[in-house]
Amino acid sequence: MDLTLSGGLVRAGERARERFYDSSGYGHVENGGALTLAPVEAAHLLYRGDIDSVDGMDVRALLSSAVVSEVAFFVYKDLRDRGFYLTPAREGWVDDPEGIDFVVYPRGKGPWDDTVEYRVRVVGERDTVPAREVGDCVLAVVDEESEITYLATDRPAVEGTSDPSVPAAEGDLLAERVLCWDPPTELYERAFYGQRLDDEGAVQLSLLEATYLARDGSLTVDGGAEAVLERGREVEGERFDRRLTAYSTLRERGVVPKTGFKFGADFRTYADVDSIDDLGHSELLVRVLPATHTFDPRDLALDVRLAHGVRKRMVFALVGDGVEWLSVARLTP
Amino acid sequence: MDLTLSGGLVRAGERARERFYDSSGYGHVENGGALTLAPVEAAHLLYRGDIDSVDGMDVRALLSSAVVSEVAFFVYKDLRDRGFYLTPAREGWVDDPEGIDFVVYPRGKGPWDDTVEYRVRVVGERDTVPAREVGDCVLAVVDEESEITYLATDRPAVEGTSDPSVPAAEGDLLAERVLCWDPPTELYERAFYGQRLDDEGAVQLSLLEATYLARDGSLTVDGGAEAVLERGREVEGERFDRRLTAYSTLRERGVVPKTGFKFGADFRTYADVDSIDDLGHSELLVRVLPATHTFDPRDLALDVRLAHGVRKRMVFALVGDGVEWLSVARLTP
Repeated sequence: MDLTLSGGLVRAGERARERFYDSSGYGHVENGGALTLAPVEAAHLLYRGDIDSVDGMDVRALLSSAVVSEVAFFVYKDLRDRGFYLTPAREGWVDDPEGIDFVVYPRGKGPWDDTVEYRVRVVGERDTVPAREVGDCVLAVVDEESEITYLATDRPAVEGTSDPSVPAAEGDLLAERVLCWDPPTELYERAFYGQRLDDEGAVQLSLLEATYLARDGSLTVDGGAEAVLERGREVEGERFDRRLTAYSTLRERGVVPKTGFKFGADFRTYADVDSIDDLGHSELLVRVLPATHTFDPRDLALDVRLAHGVRKRMVFALVGDGVEWLSVARLTP
Repeated sequence: MDLTLSGGLVRAGERARERFYDSSGYGHVENGGALTLAPVEAAHLLYRGDIDSVDGMDVRALLSSAVVSEVAFFVYKDLRDRGFYLTPAREGWVDDPEGIDFVVYPRGKGPWDDTVEYRVRVVGERDTVPAREVGDCVLAVVDEESEITYLATDRPAVEGTSDPSVPAAEGDLLAERVLCWDPPTELYERAFYGQRLDDEGAVQLSLLEATYLARDGSLTVDGGAEAVLERGREVEGERFDRRLTAYSTLRERGVVPKTGFKFGADFRTYADVDSIDDLGHSELLVRVLPATHTFDPRDLALDVRLAHGVRKRMVFALVGDGVEWLSVARLTP
């Protein structure tokens, strides 16, 4: 079968409908019953040997042309190889095509059904991904060696049952922390603020913890909350304000944020802290970013891989007017 | 005992020598036998209650003053708690004090011995670390909650036994890769260039692999090596040249670099490839950086933690005039 391109689409006609759409879910049936294929679908049919040419091109010529994106082809092929039917996301072909490239149906289902398994956005390793544009789709990242990493994005609820309130404490502001020489037991042992200097006695608070507690009236320090906040800004710039917003929001939602430094993140978090003697595994790794952030897929792969390796969920706190939560996790379709 | 500060040092006199130096390795004995303490050592003695004041200050006042760096104190204390004697790195006190803060002796040894276990550089989480200044020291990174992560830095030899040469192939330059439709078997199966499109047949090469092979005369492609190199620069900028230098150097040393995307790195490497049927575990994760790079400790913690989790060694390829290799690994002193 030799097909032709017209207006960026491949017109396959009515007789192709039964063979490619009805039996295998390729293409889109127009009013009137004629089958139209997206170029990536035609490339796949060419690659399989199911059609002979598109505008005289074989698969090698079609993939070398600008008509088909090679990364879209690799993802399309990979999902087909995994046993899925899928439809290119075009206006009129699928619901809400904005921001995605393919709609993937559950195995055994197709474009004639009403269920969707994944909404897939194809990304080359060197592309960028605006944080605002993800949260309800799967990223299919094609790396420079054409291997595909699937990353599911979501907008999770982040909440817990830890009580942030503590009895009053007093501390000294040092260069980049506050040292409480004689703190109430609850500060560290129940509410998990700070770190002990030794097995008992003095507790060191981070500048974030100290600002939060001083604002709350639970910590007395020379110069008050403003002095600690100012110090935070001096040593960290505007990043400090962003992290403070995320820190405070987490605490107010009953989640305890502790440093995520060893994991290269801003925080690791514990949802249900009653006592440090009974501390479970921390559940989330949180990286704080401006809401306008644009991801480099490689940074995303790094964070997600690390979180997976330590059995935590990777969550991004996108700070703009308030905080939006974005989780990203590896997915095997 | 009440001691006084003079010229930034604490003069403890001759009678303190036996008690603090001979028995516990604190301080430096001057010609004439008087003991001098660095402020961080005096702070530790104050904290332990072994002396009563320094210039009238107790430990709380001394740590709040600018005389002692809190992060240096935390690291000093931690190493003492771990059973080490150590000496502040000052000219005349230790050999080569440049770029480090403490010289740590093997357990059971002290400043009166000739052996050194670690040369330690203290780094706050918010400090930066020039890549050129490390390679023979241990970084003691103090995070915002005052936990300490020790990172050993080294300049490893990177070499292997994999033969980079292959029979001639021909390929099509697509947007960001080269597709060889009918490659010699050795290309992928022996020398591990590229990735198969399916179980057999076509092999996709990354732009790095294709540039290397085209320069070598092993790959024919429209426009030659220059066309592939130009494409690499178009899509990646000067980073492409840096990565190509690292890629070529690894290949020439008998090491096979493959994409490290899934680990958020530039490459994972295999030192001894004879056949892909007999491929071992990749040994290194390589991140390519300009030789002038300055590390953010948190990025370093992320890379090192990830590499550790997947049982690989984290190596940085510092590209300037040639390539220098820097490895960084977690250390428990």
